[in-house]
Amino acid sequence: MNTSPPLWRRAFAELLGTGLLVAVVVGSGIAAQRLSPNDTGLALLENAIATAFGLAVLIVVFQPLSGAHFNPVVTLVNRTLGDRATATELVTYVAAQLVGACGGAVLANAMFATPTAIATTDRTDAGRLLGEVVATAGLVLLIFALARSDRARIVGPVVGAYIGAAYWFTSSTSFANPAVTVGRAFTDSFAGIAPGSAAWFVVAQLLGGIVGLGLVLLLFPSPRKDLA
Amino acid sequence: MNTSPPLWRRAFAELLGTGLLVAVVVGSGIAAQRLSPNDTGLALLENAIATAFGLAVLIVVFQPLSGAHFNPVVTLVNRTLGDRATATELVTYVAAQLVGACGGAVLANAMFATPTAIATTDRTDAGRLLGEVVATAGLVLLIFALARSDRARIVGPVVGAYIGAAYWFTSSTSFANPAVTVGRAFTDSFAGIAPGSAAWFVVAQLLGGIVGLGLVLLLFPSPRKDLA
Amino acid sequence: MNTSPPLWRRAFAELLGTGLLVAVVVGSGIAAQRLSPNDTGLALLENAIATAFGLAVLIVVFQPLSGAHFNPVVTLVNRTLGDRATATELVTYVAAQLVGACGGAVLANAMFATPTAIATTDRTDAGRLLGEVVATAGLVLLIFALARSDRARIVGPVVGAYIGAAYWFTSSTSFANPAVTVGRAFTDSFAGIAPGSAAWFVVAQLLGGIVGLGLVLLLFPSPRKDLA
Amino acid sequence: MNTSPPLWRRAFAELLGTGLLVAVVVGSGIAAQRLSPNDTGLALLENAIATAFGLAVLIVVFQPLSGAHFNPVVTLVNRTLGDRATATELVTYVAAQLVGACGGAVLANAMFATPTAIATTDRTDAGRLLGEVVATAGLVLLIFALARSDRARIVGPVVGAYIGAAYWFTSSTSFANPAVTVGRAFTDSFAGIAPGSAAWFVVAQLLGGIVGLGLVLLLFPSPRKDLA
Repeated sequence: MNTSPPLWRRAFAELLGTGLLVAVVVGSGIAAQRLSPNDTGLALLENAIATAFGLAVLIVVFQPLSGAHFNPVVTLVNRTLGDRATATELVTYVAAQLVGACGGAVLANAMFATPTAIATTDRTDAGRLLGEVVATAGLVLLIFALARSDRARIVGPVVGAYIGAAYWFTSSTSFANPAVTVGRAFTDSFAGIAPGSAAWFVVAQLLGGIVGLGLVLLLFPSPRKDLA
Repeated sequence: MNTSPPLWRRAFAELLGTGLLVAVVVGSGIAAQRLSPNDTGLALLENAIATAFGLAVLIVVFQPLSGAHFNPVVTLVNRTLGDRATATELVTYVAAQLVGACGGAVLANAMFATPTAIATTDRTDAGRLLGEVVATAGLVLLIFALARSDRARIVGPVVGAYIGAAYWFTSSTSFANPAVTVGRAFTDSFAGIAPGSAAWFVVAQLLGGIVGLGLVLLLFPSPRKDLA
Repeated sequence: MNTSPPLWRRAFAELLGTGLLVAVVVGSGIAAQRLSPNDTGLALLENAIATAFGLAVLIVVFQPLSGAHFNPVVTLVNRTLGDRATATELVTYVAAQLVGACGGAVLANAMFATPTAIATTDRTDAGRLLGEVVATAGLVLLIFALARSDRARIVGPVVGAYIGAAYWFTSSTSFANPAVTVGRAFTDSFAGIAPGSAAWFVVAQLLGGIVGLGLVLLLFPSPRKDLA
Repeated sequence: MNTSPPLWRRAFAELLGTGLLVAVVVGSGIAAQRLSPNDTGLALLENAIATAFGLAVLIVVFQPLSGAHFNPVVTLVNRTLGDRATATELVTYVAAQLVGACGGAVLANAMFATPTAIATTDRTDAGRLLGEVVATAGLVLLIFALARSDRARIVGPVVGAYIGAAYWFTSSTSFANPAVTVGRAFTDSFAGIAPGSAAWFVVAQLLGGIVGLGLVLLLFPSPRKDLA
């Protein structure tokens, strides 16, 4: 984490970045569902491409300010792996991510003249929860593999491409982010998730974060050592 | 802005670049609508991918000459943030962008044997205007975030990816550019916009430019400071 | 042009690269037409994405050997702009491109168990010929804009993205290459072109090459000057 | 090959990387087939985009550890071209790739609640086997072209783009990898391949590896010589 900017600016970057990420996911989901109503796969392809491109851009833009976590799991793993963030910083980051995520859903709903409402899409089943574990573990592994091999500057496009793929190869379409999951509970549209499912998703994501952390420690035990 | 090339050459670059951008948007829109008449989402996907790729290329090609603004909002914000362009330069840039944009629509119409005509597609509603504010604010934020953190050389692919995503996550499909909006009034096809809607879009884009400028000043208060 | 490798190796690189380019265009066209028979736009999207990716890769691979022209127009403009290629080198390059292009069509036909046959798809109309002029002029402008601003190493992805867009924004789907046009006359499938149309396309491409050359001289009058 | 990490860590990287690659291919295939049941081309497009993005990411992540071969043909050609791997290392790599590939299929099946079963999709015909020869020869050529011209760091995105194109331009959809082929025999879904076909595919891939090796030696006879 680049600690140079003051905390308020870093927190604002996390809030704005997470908010725009949820606006991208929810907004492109609404557009895709409306414009491609006859093929769910086509709608998901539109949603996935928009998310992959948008997420890559958001990380590139905000990375110099806050590290562009946009994700409590990333913030917590980063702390565990040696970032010296204080408790105040951790709480501020996660709060900013959660507030931003909810705001992003409201913004997307407003742009598409859709009421902000609690989602009703149930997504709970064992396969999808396994999908969230895999998706989050993979996300954590790739972010910190890059950070620990001195390639943090390419995290943006790599994470974008990863999520673009993970929309498809996981059965859950890869939320992989507790803040985004909470935000997506505030839209009853293509990208929505019912609160009951959201809770299970967050549990699976935390578990995936632990798996990912284990893989990082196993494969990249010390920063910038034994790496090309 | 790299001020080395003479003004006529920079203006020609802005004219040609903006013209080709509108030709890409309008031409790919006509092709998509003709070839995928049964699914508006699929046509928009084709239009969005062509635009994302084409816009990235155009910025990469023309950036060393004129800065590759192709957009009056970008030219005005750039001036506000410290570029020392004279009034003559500002007027020349914006005029070149407008003339180029109209020429690009005429060229696309000619390639597809479509008459050049005033568009009749009404796009005015509150959600879409909010979409234009968001789209333009985001565009301004990302361009100047990169410029102020010494990463201007990647503006091309990043702006291309952003617009590719913004076709989907904004309800307006993200015009985000007054010159392009004017040009798109000269084709009555997939990408067209009726003059009455175009006027409102330009107002929203100017407002979005102000919002974007505010975000830049808040998050990146001084060039190349407190940034990695 | 890197003239270090012996001419036979450079010629083989041009033959193999142009051949694989045609194999990508023709092969992905056959696959797309077979698998997406109900929406021509979807088939073209599949064809365009495969071509954009494949062309970028081929340029990256062969660029250090032969310059990865794969295109007689590029070879001729390169000579005009100051490359010191001899008449023997020019003839060898163009011959290798033509032989490779025909071989690539035969290979694609064989992979898909399609007979090699003269194409019957007529593509001649004024709009499409204008499309070829625009497509080829744009291709020449971008290649030599990059070469003359010391960015030749990114030609691969930029040309790939350009052609991916030009499949859509030109009415001709952007052949932009006389060798590839000749090769595409040897398959009576999605990407085929009847010899009568191919002749007109080549004329338009040569005209586009001249327009592109003029734009390069106007905008980038001397290599590596007045450029960032 | 970067030989610094201990063999167990490199083997684990090969196992995990190959496993996730097969999980991406098989998982996205199942999702695509379920969500786009009415157009095989659209399902293949979804499958191809997910694979291209996922494969690029996996190579980027694991390359500093094991070289990110994920493919016995790549490991064998690498050894032939001068890597000083011992017999133990070779056997360990290939075993890790095979075990990982099978595990990846099981994981994908589990995420999508599909039983792990022997595939029944017959893919044997002369055109497809020629496709596998071409696909594997091209893959070998591009990887070692980059390695021998000091550009190994861009192998990830270039291989991803290549496979994304090769899904379309080869009639076999480009398996190009014996380990992945074996793994794909353990799912009776979109990406599955019956064992009888898998055996022929592996033969064709080994033949393609030899063709690719020949092309590398012809075009790039010595590492880092006569190259820009």
